[in-house]
Amino acid sequence: MTNVQALPTLAPEGAGHFSYPVPAPARDHRHLLGLEGMPRETLLELLEDGQCYRDQMDRGGIASHALDGVTVCNAFFENSTRTRLSFELAERRMGATVVSFSATDSSTAKGETLLDTMKVIEAMGVDMVVVRHASSGAAAYLANHLQGSVINAGDGTHEHPTQGLLDLLTLRQVWSGRFEGRKLAIVGDIMHSRVARSAIHGLVTLGVQVALAGPATLMPAGIESLGARIAPTADDAIAGADAVMALRLQKERMEQGLLASAGEYTKHWGIDARRARLLRPHGVIMHPGPVNRGVELMPDVADSKRSVILEQVTNGVAMRCAALERCAAESRNVA
Amino acid sequence: MTNVQALPTLAPEGAGHFSYPVPAPARDHRHLLGLEGMPRETLLELLEDGQCYRDQMDRGGIASHALDGVTVCNAFFENSTRTRLSFELAERRMGATVVSFSATDSSTAKGETLLDTMKVIEAMGVDMVVVRHASSGAAAYLANHLQGSVINAGDGTHEHPTQGLLDLLTLRQVWSGRFEGRKLAIVGDIMHSRVARSAIHGLVTLGVQVALAGPATLMPAGIESLGARIAPTADDAIAGADAVMALRLQKERMEQGLLASAGEYTKHWGIDARRARLLRPHGVIMHPGPVNRGVELMPDVADSKRSVILEQVTNGVAMRCAALERCAAESRNVA
Amino acid sequence: MTNVQALPTLAPEGAGHFSYPVPAPARDHRHLLGLEGMPRETLLELLEDGQCYRDQMDRGGIASHALDGVTVCNAFFENSTRTRLSFELAERRMGATVVSFSATDSSTAKGETLLDTMKVIEAMGVDMVVVRHASSGAAAYLANHLQGSVINAGDGTHEHPTQGLLDLLTLRQVWSGRFEGRKLAIVGDIMHSRVARSAIHGLVTLGVQVALAGPATLMPAGIESLGARIAPTADDAIAGADAVMALRLQKERMEQGLLASAGEYTKHWGIDARRARLLRPHGVIMHPGPVNRGVELMPDVADSKRSVILEQVTNGVAMRCAALERCAAESRNVA
Repeated sequence: MTNVQALPTLAPEGAGHFSYPVPAPARDHRHLLGLEGMPRETLLELLEDGQCYRDQMDRGGIASHALDGVTVCNAFFENSTRTRLSFELAERRMGATVVSFSATDSSTAKGETLLDTMKVIEAMGVDMVVVRHASSGAAAYLANHLQGSVINAGDGTHEHPTQGLLDLLTLRQVWSGRFEGRKLAIVGDIMHSRVARSAIHGLVTLGVQVALAGPATLMPAGIESLGARIAPTADDAIAGADAVMALRLQKERMEQGLLASAGEYTKHWGIDARRARLLRPHGVIMHPGPVNRGVELMPDVADSKRSVILEQVTNGVAMRCAALERCAAESRNVA
Repeated sequence: MTNVQALPTLAPEGAGHFSYPVPAPARDHRHLLGLEGMPRETLLELLEDGQCYRDQMDRGGIASHALDGVTVCNAFFENSTRTRLSFELAERRMGATVVSFSATDSSTAKGETLLDTMKVIEAMGVDMVVVRHASSGAAAYLANHLQGSVINAGDGTHEHPTQGLLDLLTLRQVWSGRFEGRKLAIVGDIMHSRVARSAIHGLVTLGVQVALAGPATLMPAGIESLGARIAPTADDAIAGADAVMALRLQKERMEQGLLASAGEYTKHWGIDARRARLLRPHGVIMHPGPVNRGVELMPDVADSKRSVILEQVTNGVAMRCAALERCAAESRNVA
Repeated sequence: MTNVQALPTLAPEGAGHFSYPVPAPARDHRHLLGLEGMPRETLLELLEDGQCYRDQMDRGGIASHALDGVTVCNAFFENSTRTRLSFELAERRMGATVVSFSATDSSTAKGETLLDTMKVIEAMGVDMVVVRHASSGAAAYLANHLQGSVINAGDGTHEHPTQGLLDLLTLRQVWSGRFEGRKLAIVGDIMHSRVARSAIHGLVTLGVQVALAGPATLMPAGIESLGARIAPTADDAIAGADAVMALRLQKERMEQGLLASAGEYTKHWGIDARRARLLRPHGVIMHPGPVNRGVELMPDVADSKRSVILEQVTNGVAMRCAALERCAAESRNVA
């Protein structure tokens, strides 16, 4: 149905290779592996739950018992302080017993396979695994081989579903709950972006018109099959849109010869004040962070009233609470 | 009584040197430094307690208050994600306040001595220290100089007593509680293995007949004095045994010139399907992990029904709960 | 008023530059940025509270609910295991939800600015930030730009106020609460020491006579304006004093050409038994740790009855409890 599996995975040497899309057994609701194929009703329920947690945060903090007695391991085979902290905060505030590790101190450095490592973690009595891994398909692979819940916190260039959900929750707030017929532009390195892929799946399901813009070398062939259109320029994608999502530019792209220079990139694809004014009057600026200020986003735009970047961060904790609670509840039903 | 102290410690440059066996003052039951000399009754009590915690895990998770108000520091001067997570999970589930650090971020990098570092940790109000260190005798040294409890989580080539206990608990389950007269083979790099040393002490005390097999360059002189026999070949050690424990092969052994190649090692000492069939009908395969698949253990054997490797991992959390509870209780008696 | 800002900050490449002293808006009591300008009454109240927590520790451990529902992030852009553990223990024992990261795994490695990183952390629902950073003024800068509380855990060569407070609490105990007219010597690398600067501010405010001694290359011009005198020799500073605080010597000073050798330093400025005897009969030895044994402090002096180094460590947890509680209470008043 999609040609996502044809994309280069660009996993680091030794990260392993996994096939996806997600095989059927992994589609049960104990897991959150991606937003591809997630029904509209499920998405809307999750966003409703996420908003409840967000309301709690605004009233002074989440104090839930939804994960009392549940043990969660945050397994980060790629380092990410902000995503790890967001998950840890969500888990702790819901009463979970939490342990974490990152690849730098992992036993995979000793040559153990990913599955061996995670089976060992699970055998310690861990109920849920939050996993980030450089290989596309790693989370689905684990979901098919472990007993407990698997939450994908980013797998290669595939998906980053809790990021997609926090993007949707932010837009739900900005758009007063109406997604149908809205327009959103995603600008940047679409090819390598799991953030873009999860956002596209969720947005298209909810009826948003998505335009993609970026350098031809970073635009994957066939990406239109996901339901988005490819715009010829950043201006074309942004003009008249209700929101624009700038993607982070990785410095590796220049080294890989996929881009001439950061300056060249900024000229054509960076979001500056002029481009921001192409949005509809209430159009907003989004970014998954961390921002390369002056590259994909100009500082004055990042800090402008249109920017909802910090709202995205706050919503991230709320959506992770909602997602973790749902997976835990489904696990109890299965057990 | 033993010649363990004659073994090379192979501690990294600057790790420090400590004499052992454990001096008398450190033998009090606040500490768990090794299984050498531990009375049969104590071992059996610990295993009984460990089984209770394991039963709790099987019924849905440990929720104990045995360490309420107790502060534990996991001080890993050698990195080990799996052992750290196993201890952290045990401590958290029993209500302890837990802090951890690993050598990479330790102030020992600033040239402070091990004892200075640990006295400072203790002065912060830490009641129990779980310590892993590259030098044999490090845990006993700390037990003699600190006020609180010390749990040895692996010291050089000396002992790794909670690993020994989890091995025993796994065999207690497999053997329906009867150790007397059973036969177990340990195959691999006996010389550098604290896992082997703790296992031998515990097994011999409980009446198990232990056969050791491995390359001559990795077999310490005089090891028979611990009560085990040296077998000429892997086949000889395994034939008719009730269990075989494969040890992890460290790549450093090739670099140190102690082994020609991994392939050569596997041919003579690797556990494959043929060797596994030499065991008694219900004989089991053990490994402390992480497994070098295809080196000391073939994948089909590691994943076979005979393998109890993941049971060992689960029992690890349970035994650590039992050991921590006992040390905490003894500390209260002393105080 | 002071010339502190004229000092070299010596921050690592890319650490950023901040101006200080603290601008007015940051002086509110939600924050603890430094001891400079802190009124005598505030200092005495904090010490009284710290002593209460210390008494709890001596009776078996702190079990406070002062930070129930409060989320704290320990953001260490410079690594320090002991300071991080001290804060984490204080926070956990008071019921806070705690997350921590250190620079090595921080997204600042991705080129994000300090403020971007910390705004993101705050947006996750973090109420208090404990920050250590290589740049002087970093904590005040954050206090002026974040909504929540900022606790300075050491900023460049500026201040380390909880260290200053724990020094004062230790002296309050040793001196039975009377500071007025006491004499204290600080010996070592005054120029680069945030520990010295915080101590001087607190001690001078409480009426202690402070003498500074150290190599001329490490004695900042104009430091007398803080209210301390510069002594020509270590002997002169220590003779007749009630306490001496030896500062840690960083090896970088030799590489920077500010010192000829550690041996030369020790001869002139190291505290040995002879120099310790120059103190008044009940004079005590202090050190912020970790001690370079044999360099700034001889082992026999560090381990002598005069040494209160481990008392300082225990008081560190107690004073951090008091400081955190006060900032949390002030935050509630502001909100």
